[in-house]
Amino acid sequence: MSNRSEPASRLEAQVAFLREADKLKSVLRASRLIDGARRENSAEHSWHVMLYALVLADQAAPEVRIDRAIRMLLLHDLVEIDAGDAPIHGAVDHAAMAAKEIAAADRLFAMLPNDQAQDFRALWDEFEAAETPDALFAKSIDRIQTPVGNLASGGGTWADYNVTLDQMDTRVGIPVDKGTPGIWAWLRPQIKAFLGDSKTN
Amino acid sequence: MSNRSEPASRLEAQVAFLREADKLKSVLRASRLIDGARRENSAEHSWHVMLYALVLADQAAPEVRIDRAIRMLLLHDLVEIDAGDAPIHGAVDHAAMAAKEIAAADRLFAMLPNDQAQDFRALWDEFEAAETPDALFAKSIDRIQTPVGNLASGGGTWADYNVTLDQMDTRVGIPVDKGTPGIWAWLRPQIKAFLGDSKTN
Repeated sequence: MSNRSEPASRLEAQVAFLREADKLKSVLRASRLIDGARRENSAEHSWHVMLYALVLADQAAPEVRIDRAIRMLLLHDLVEIDAGDAPIHGAVDHAAMAAKEIAAADRLFAMLPNDQAQDFRALWDEFEAAETPDALFAKSIDRIQTPVGNLASGGGTWADYNVTLDQMDTRVGIPVDKGTPGIWAWLRPQIKAFLGDSKTN
Repeated sequence: MSNRSEPASRLEAQVAFLREADKLKSVLRASRLIDGARRENSAEHSWHVMLYALVLADQAAPEVRIDRAIRMLLLHDLVEIDAGDAPIHGAVDHAAMAAKEIAAADRLFAMLPNDQAQDFRALWDEFEAAETPDALFAKSIDRIQTPVGNLASGGGTWADYNVTLDQMDTRVGIPVDKGTPGIWAWLRPQIKAFLGDSKTN
């Protein structure tokens, strides 16, 4: 390929990736909209958790770079285009799901020009590893939106999956407490009050 | 209010705003998903244009701060919770719509703690004014996603609104050319070829 044609083919690769990303709007999560009208999809969920990250930035550790965490959340669910969404309270084969998500990351990010493919993949890998301050904050934020919605809408997925406070402590509390301990301290008593009074506990 | 209770009430205000934002998932745009399955909502559109901004960052003027433009796009459609979406090719009373959007911004951002209410409102005002490099880039990106989808899906909203190339030049070309001229130079010939061969031109 000549240098002259490279910019157009770079742009074509980028736009092909952006067209492919449209499919995330058709990946349904277990959770519903707060008004109960329908299940939430992973694209609108991604938008919502980015807004959570921006609004709740003051709950992050001081070393967290909020815009970098927002970038992670922008990309974090793209792999679901191939792998689907694994409900947090569902019976999921985590090894099989991780393998599917890695294959999806291999395929999807490779649609981009090399430099971006590497940058985006590194950001996704860092999010998945959940070790850096940015990733711990982003992972925490990703876990907060559904319980907040469930509390506002009569229990949501908690009733569907017969969720207990122990499960919430393990699957939500641990990651949320690592990234945004102030939010978990505020949220847990509400979850406890709700699940303690519900038939699902 | 005592200082001691302030952090909890700050968090409560923030979460009330985030719950209210859930309603953006129920605001429907004129455009459809690329697969034609249904109309797109403004929350998933917001996610998609943020991805466009990140992927197409190399099309921005050098002074553009991409993360700041992404923040603008994260917030840009929130006012539609009250004002609804105004289709770009529809017959819209622009003065009335602007008044509705300003009233929506007044109500929604005021749900946040004062510092954030002011920061978010300033960012939204800057986006709407479309004068700074960040806003020109964000506005341009916001105009690109629908034509890219229309080209990939047999015309989409162009057929619905009987859109001509002149209209595209005015309503899409001018803002896109201001923020990302390289994209308009690449996109216009494709739009021209499509509309020139279609019955809608």
